[in-house]
Amino acid sequence: MARPCRAGATKKERAVANLNDLIRNIPDFPIPGIQFKDITTLISNGPAFAQVVDTLAERYAPLNIDAVVGIESRGFIFSAPLAYRLGVGLVPVRKHGKLPAATHRVEYELEYGSNKLEIHRDAFPTGARVVVIDDLLATGGTVAAACELVQMAGGRVEEVAFIIELEFLKGRDKLTRYPVYSMLQY
Amino acid sequence: MARPCRAGATKKERAVANLNDLIRNIPDFPIPGIQFKDITTLISNGPAFAQVVDTLAERYAPLNIDAVVGIESRGFIFSAPLAYRLGVGLVPVRKHGKLPAATHRVEYELEYGSNKLEIHRDAFPTGARVVVIDDLLATGGTVAAACELVQMAGGRVEEVAFIIELEFLKGRDKLTRYPVYSMLQY
Repeated sequence: MARPCRAGATKKERAVANLNDLIRNIPDFPIPGIQFKDITTLISNGPAFAQVVDTLAERYAPLNIDAVVGIESRGFIFSAPLAYRLGVGLVPVRKHGKLPAATHRVEYELEYGSNKLEIHRDAFPTGARVVVIDDLLATGGTVAAACELVQMAGGRVEEVAFIIELEFLKGRDKLTRYPVYSMLQY
Repeated sequence: MARPCRAGATKKERAVANLNDLIRNIPDFPIPGIQFKDITTLISNGPAFAQVVDTLAERYAPLNIDAVVGIESRGFIFSAPLAYRLGVGLVPVRKHGKLPAATHRVEYELEYGSNKLEIHRDAFPTGARVVVIDDLLATGGTVAAACELVQMAGGRVEEVAFIIELEFLKGRDKLTRYPVYSMLQY
């Protein structure tokens, strides 16, 4: 059920915000040579934050989504208001050891070492139509693991969505089994 | 500016959800003897999640809030949709080392060891009216540190809000300088 929720500003007013201009480049974070894309300057701008959520909501309202999956922790910032706006539940994918009930777990490789993500086994009913949200698509390892978890829990990934895509890192190559959407590309 | 955003369900329909019934008790998590209050069963229920956000929004819309501060990471789940619904920005308080630009930092004591939280120095203009959101009030150390950070960054804490308050841990005793609201008490 989509919620007939409308922004306070009109579409034309909202479209004024150039989202690119609101993302801050931080050189050499977290390590030298990396240009970090800082979204805090975007989300602290009320109309711009609403514009991002409304854009996602307009895209997913027609898909009869049953649940929004958000990846800890910056993914929560966009997945939670999207779930609210669509009138559906939010299902968190969290780092190892954070979810208290029985979980599925996936371990995936990072450049140095590995990482583990979990989802509750009873997160949604079998066949639930799910959109998976994270803030940024880099190499794609995290979100590929999250999609695997959704399937282990019985969900169907209808699309994977990001606010920012770092195209040169070719994260889409790890997500060929799912439709992928990104709002801003670098 | 409050957004004239309305839930898909009527108030009466929404009020059917008994939020208490949707919070799951997990015995002995994360350590033996602790009864963990699991909110994932609440947030995965679309109407119940919306009811929580709408209740917060109805409370804070009249206060002319300039920004919602969310505490990493479960605090993001409620602060982000509240900011969206109020049409204001979201400012994250994060664990040490996660925020990329210049920060204020507060270290606070835990039962064993200590923890550090940060906020961006330019998070909001001086005098900004802020509500601070976390999912759960336990001993209050984390949220007291978050409120201190808000003040260091020039903000004014209008209220601190939680979905769940564990009253027997007396977290309010650490928050006597601010109005405190909780939705459910144990």
